[in-house]
Amino acid sequence: MRCAGDIDARQVDETAINIDPIQVGGRLTADAMKAVIAYGDGYSVCDNCRKPFRLDYIKKPPIADFHADLASWLGMDACRVVPGARRGFQAVCQGLVQKGDPVILTALSHYTEFIAAESVGAVPREIPKDGKNHITADAAAETIERVIKTEGKTPALLFVEGVDYQFGNHHDIRGIAKVAHSYDIPVLYNGAYTVGILPVSGKELGVDFVIGSGHKSMAAPAPSGLVATNAEYAERIFATTAVKGDQTGRTFGIKEVAMMGCTLMGVTVMGMMASFPHVKERVLAWDEELRKGKIVIDSLLSIEGTKILSDMPREHTLTRIDTRESFDRVAETHKKRGFYFTSALGKRGIAGVIPGATKIWKFNTYGMTESQADYTANAFLDIARENGLAVND
Amino acid sequence: MRCAGDIDARQVDETAINIDPIQVGGRLTADAMKAVIAYGDGYSVCDNCRKPFRLDYIKKPPIADFHADLASWLGMDACRVVPGARRGFQAVCQGLVQKGDPVILTALSHYTEFIAAESVGAVPREIPKDGKNHITADAAAETIERVIKTEGKTPALLFVEGVDYQFGNHHDIRGIAKVAHSYDIPVLYNGAYTVGILPVSGKELGVDFVIGSGHKSMAAPAPSGLVATNAEYAERIFATTAVKGDQTGRTFGIKEVAMMGCTLMGVTVMGMMASFPHVKERVLAWDEELRKGKIVIDSLLSIEGTKILSDMPREHTLTRIDTRESFDRVAETHKKRGFYFTSALGKRGIAGVIPGATKIWKFNTYGMTESQADYTANAFLDIARENGLAVND
Repeated sequence: MRCAGDIDARQVDETAINIDPIQVGGRLTADAMKAVIAYGDGYSVCDNCRKPFRLDYIKKPPIADFHADLASWLGMDACRVVPGARRGFQAVCQGLVQKGDPVILTALSHYTEFIAAESVGAVPREIPKDGKNHITADAAAETIERVIKTEGKTPALLFVEGVDYQFGNHHDIRGIAKVAHSYDIPVLYNGAYTVGILPVSGKELGVDFVIGSGHKSMAAPAPSGLVATNAEYAERIFATTAVKGDQTGRTFGIKEVAMMGCTLMGVTVMGMMASFPHVKERVLAWDEELRKGKIVIDSLLSIEGTKILSDMPREHTLTRIDTRESFDRVAETHKKRGFYFTSALGKRGIAGVIPGATKIWKFNTYGMTESQADYTANAFLDIARENGLAVND
Repeated sequence: MRCAGDIDARQVDETAINIDPIQVGGRLTADAMKAVIAYGDGYSVCDNCRKPFRLDYIKKPPIADFHADLASWLGMDACRVVPGARRGFQAVCQGLVQKGDPVILTALSHYTEFIAAESVGAVPREIPKDGKNHITADAAAETIERVIKTEGKTPALLFVEGVDYQFGNHHDIRGIAKVAHSYDIPVLYNGAYTVGILPVSGKELGVDFVIGSGHKSMAAPAPSGLVATNAEYAERIFATTAVKGDQTGRTFGIKEVAMMGCTLMGVTVMGMMASFPHVKERVLAWDEELRKGKIVIDSLLSIEGTKILSDMPREHTLTRIDTRESFDRVAETHKKRGFYFTSALGKRGIAGVIPGATKIWKFNTYGMTESQADYTANAFLDIARENGLAVND
């Protein structure tokens, strides 16, 4: 029998500078850690659940206020917490998409958007990216026209990523939403890399749904996330149960179908909530994050042969990099092959790069202190020099 | 702005004897608490995620082994962790039920079973309970016949509760499954009050799906749970994504549609996993739990006018009680009305009864020590005597 001792304590973010593309925005704040300890037990937030018995009505702890605050913070009318952004995508699809309906996604959409569409039997169609890895309003318009022609139906929903997971590029959300709305297609903004990271207003962007990830970008435990809607769609997405027990006559109050009733009954919602005041502050310091990220980017670019595949100058801390002409040259003859690189990073206390990756890879500098950025920048230079790569500084 | 200090630390299970019907099985073990602290950060289990990039393939921490162990522990062929039992119900419905299909539930089904059916557009139909609050194989057979006649279709799925949430009664799962299978109807066993509490073997019960709740009954943080299937249905329920990006040609590997890809990426799966060795042991001590529960039940029954509405002798620690002729008599003239009762319990350090409840209510003695059971039993007697109720001891 496995014993509990088989689970080693994880200390990645305590003992190293983590640059993992998906992990850095989800590290807990100290207040979230306290909440996690206090609310670890299963149904811990249900002590004071009273009529009408729904998570987002609980007043103590102040989960009801938290829901209202989230909606207004995002410039939306209603918000619910869900077990991950993906469950937000699913909820919106459940409310708006019928089997066989075309749904528009993009060439940079995350797999969970595709799966949400697939889960309701939708036909996913992509907006292609342009040569600069952007999703444009023109491409959206062309795609909508193409889909209407080939599928004979107006798409039921359009997904677009505020910042995509591949390049960390920003896209013209306002323009795309305007185009979609001219066809009466509702727009879902995937804020997995933006909500909790930089300022987001669904109202300013002109979108109908804002989805965020707690464990990716809101310093919260997994699985957590949110789905926010404008007033137009709130009732449809958050429709309450309408079924009845045919023998007992039971009905089930105001539980919402797409939420499956209550969603995050303990540690997850409390972690999100405890981090929220800090998250609201940190999005306002986004320029600082970009400035610190630039220290690392500049250093990497000074290593001959290194290319940044994401937009330059960087407007996000998630970056796609091509080191085929620099660090991978070393791997060709190194006795550790590609593993020399992550091994050298590891020795310097830098974690989060996939072992063996020396060709095209991603990293995220979010949340570093300035001295960690300096240290990381120098570590890359060191490794380059140590392995005979030219550095132009 | 709300500050983090607004979240008071929760100490219900540290400072009181909690008899809340839904909370007692979800209290963390000490090992789970350690895991929660070590894996609080968002995507904390993804450090060593390698191809094929899916939660249940992660070897370090040993999440892959955990999945295999769960399946064999439950006498099933495959298992996945999900954000709560409800998401397990939903996954099975997604895989087996088409819009308009009748689905059989019971007069004692939990609302989340109804919502899972509703979420896929099914027509829920209840098996009535008998005069003893049992769901019988005969009633199941009659219901199936009735539904086939009235709906003109064989039901796509039958839900049944191992132990129901209303009375904590056991039902004839084997008999019901046999009947359902004679119509080729797959059977979903809702183990929200049994998996993690008492020994459960899906194989012995003859069911096709076993659903469990981590936060209700497996000493795990919320939201967590599991869906286990036999080999016959595993492929259908855990079908991998089949969609393709029409512009990029992307496909999405072995991510499973009903799971929405990965499910519990941090604290939730790690909490479940750390508690698992203890959970495996505690289900074997179920007789001890019943024996301790009996101490409390006997005490309550010695208070004149008190009735147990659940099966007697109790075969579960969740009990429905009628105190209209005992504690509620006091409420009629007490200056605190019904609140005197929970207030008196609170003063004695007993938590988990809905404030004001003195008529028909529920409690759960699961996890008490023997001295806590004695103490609780005496507390009820004390409160009865203090308020002039006759006690026959």
